[in-house]
Amino acid sequence: MIAGSLADLGEWGLIRALASRMPQGSFASVGIGDDSAVVATPSGSVVAAVDLLLEGRHFLPSWSSGYDIGVKAAARSLADIAAMGAKPTALLVALAAPGSLPVSWAMDLASGLASEAGRAGAGIVGGDTASADSVALSVTALGDLDGVPPVRRSGARPGDVVAVAGPLGDSAAGYALRSAGISGFAALVAAHLRPAPPYDAGPEAARLGATAMIDVSDGLYADLGHVATASGVTIDVSAPSLLEAFAGPLTAAAAALASARGDGGSEQSTVLDWVLTGGEDHSLAATFPASVSLPPRWQVIGAARPRGGEVGGGEVGGGGGVRAGGGPVTVDGEPYAGPGGWQHFR
Amino acid sequence: MIAGSLADLGEWGLIRALASRMPQGSFASVGIGDDSAVVATPSGSVVAAVDLLLEGRHFLPSWSSGYDIGVKAAARSLADIAAMGAKPTALLVALAAPGSLPVSWAMDLASGLASEAGRAGAGIVGGDTASADSVALSVTALGDLDGVPPVRRSGARPGDVVAVAGPLGDSAAGYALRSAGISGFAALVAAHLRPAPPYDAGPEAARLGATAMIDVSDGLYADLGHVATASGVTIDVSAPSLLEAFAGPLTAAAAALASARGDGGSEQSTVLDWVLTGGEDHSLAATFPASVSLPPRWQVIGAARPRGGEVGGGEVGGGGGVRAGGGPVTVDGEPYAGPGGWQHFR
Repeated sequence: MIAGSLADLGEWGLIRALASRMPQGSFASVGIGDDSAVVATPSGSVVAAVDLLLEGRHFLPSWSSGYDIGVKAAARSLADIAAMGAKPTALLVALAAPGSLPVSWAMDLASGLASEAGRAGAGIVGGDTASADSVALSVTALGDLDGVPPVRRSGARPGDVVAVAGPLGDSAAGYALRSAGISGFAALVAAHLRPAPPYDAGPEAARLGATAMIDVSDGLYADLGHVATASGVTIDVSAPSLLEAFAGPLTAAAAALASARGDGGSEQSTVLDWVLTGGEDHSLAATFPASVSLPPRWQVIGAARPRGGEVGGGEVGGGGGVRAGGGPVTVDGEPYAGPGGWQHFR
Repeated sequence: MIAGSLADLGEWGLIRALASRMPQGSFASVGIGDDSAVVATPSGSVVAAVDLLLEGRHFLPSWSSGYDIGVKAAARSLADIAAMGAKPTALLVALAAPGSLPVSWAMDLASGLASEAGRAGAGIVGGDTASADSVALSVTALGDLDGVPPVRRSGARPGDVVAVAGPLGDSAAGYALRSAGISGFAALVAAHLRPAPPYDAGPEAARLGATAMIDVSDGLYADLGHVATASGVTIDVSAPSLLEAFAGPLTAAAAALASARGDGGSEQSTVLDWVLTGGEDHSLAATFPASVSLPPRWQVIGAARPRGGEVGGGEVGGGGGVRAGGGPVTVDGEPYAGPGGWQHFR
């Protein structure tokens, strides 16, 4: 079963093999094998998001195992569900791959998908397969709000505090270390290969009264920019608070990189850049009324202010993206001079 | 806005431009622009399916416009919802494309997606974009059962009649004509480029008491094989009934092809092969108790029988696919000697 390539198994053989690794979970009454899945939606609505993960663009097979890629593909979509305040219930997975792909790689992928879906409480209920020259994954996640209203990007109000659950910068540090060929730092490299979003913090934030929330995928600076723009506020984050909350695992890594490069003295700016712009940790950033008593895993790192009066603030540029130096997010009251978030197609 | 390439627009510009063409429909309370969509599910469950559409594999840009590809991508996923007996409510669209892709092409794609979603009663509520070397689309469709149980593939019983709503063979004929460079036959070519599944026939079949249903994507012979296998029955289809119901638009096309090839006399077998194995029409095939009075668009073309006693019947092969000559579907009581359905990865 595990030996051979996808071409040996054929489409139905592949689907059966993958399905054997991917439990359908407790919400689905119809899972893999019919025209569509049927998934319970106790709240009378479904929360749904889709994300692509493409070979060469989002992952390199030489860096990541099939298992790693399954975890990352699932985490990206599941985090979007949590970021609405919803509980993940199910995934649909579409896989395009070459016929020459080893079956063992596809089975590892299925195990990674199943592992991360299981950690989120979701099953895998359907999908599609096709042959292609490189591996492409599309993962659709479904979720249920359990009776709470969805937490949009647009609800932040002046005076709200900004808090983050989950790590920031770990994935970027892991990527930088691996790129530089620096060994050790296994936890940071793992954070890059297999992000572990704090899914249950999403519904927790909704119950606590979060006014806005987002999955930190493009980097905190860019993603808070989306919240600030949608909400019509300025968000100011505190560099000392960010460093206190997130620098712990990063400082030694920044020093190792500086040492390998032969420069020095820039560790703190490297760490701050990872935390602000690294992305791909898929932690959750949310705004809460200042009166809310937050559990310890929600680290307060800033506050929302009225738009227009901020130092160095300004409108979003014509392209709609959040640009360093001119956006609705400031760091200690000033525009951030770092490289900003990721933009596709450029 | 329309001139230029995706690289000129950037990711957020592209998303805004696409969204302007794609209404979110009447079921979504949160659409494009947040972490996830929120879509009403009045029945307390959601029906969900995903399909891939890949450049070079499922379409050729030299054959199909962006509009055509949008229609086809939407139709493939929406038909899966209808095939459960459900009403489509929403689509999520993930698009991977080169930065050099003209914006006008992407806007045509959005218009095609919107047009077909609108014909099905669905909105477009979310998605993802990424850059890639070729165009790849993943369309997730959501639907609601409106209080009826889902119509599975596994419910066909001996004695049931088999009926089809929508055309069969038109897409295959259009493909063959276009491949041969034969002009005219615009309706058949359109059927290949822009399939038009009879979405409302799905919920209609569910209300009429359909025992099993499937979207005819791989070809009637292969897809009825999936129903027969899942249901533990043999399905026998009647070639005269198929020809009476579906040959009308196909006979002249088969004659034109035979004439172009310089052979003759095989038109009827060409037509029957298109009808049985052509696929991609995305019509609906369903089984009903013989007592059900079917509306005229449901054309009765066969019946389900007990497994094991049929002429030429047999078990499904080890690969799980339905093979010509050894499967659970017969034509006028005999195995069909045609090429059978499509298998990926082979």
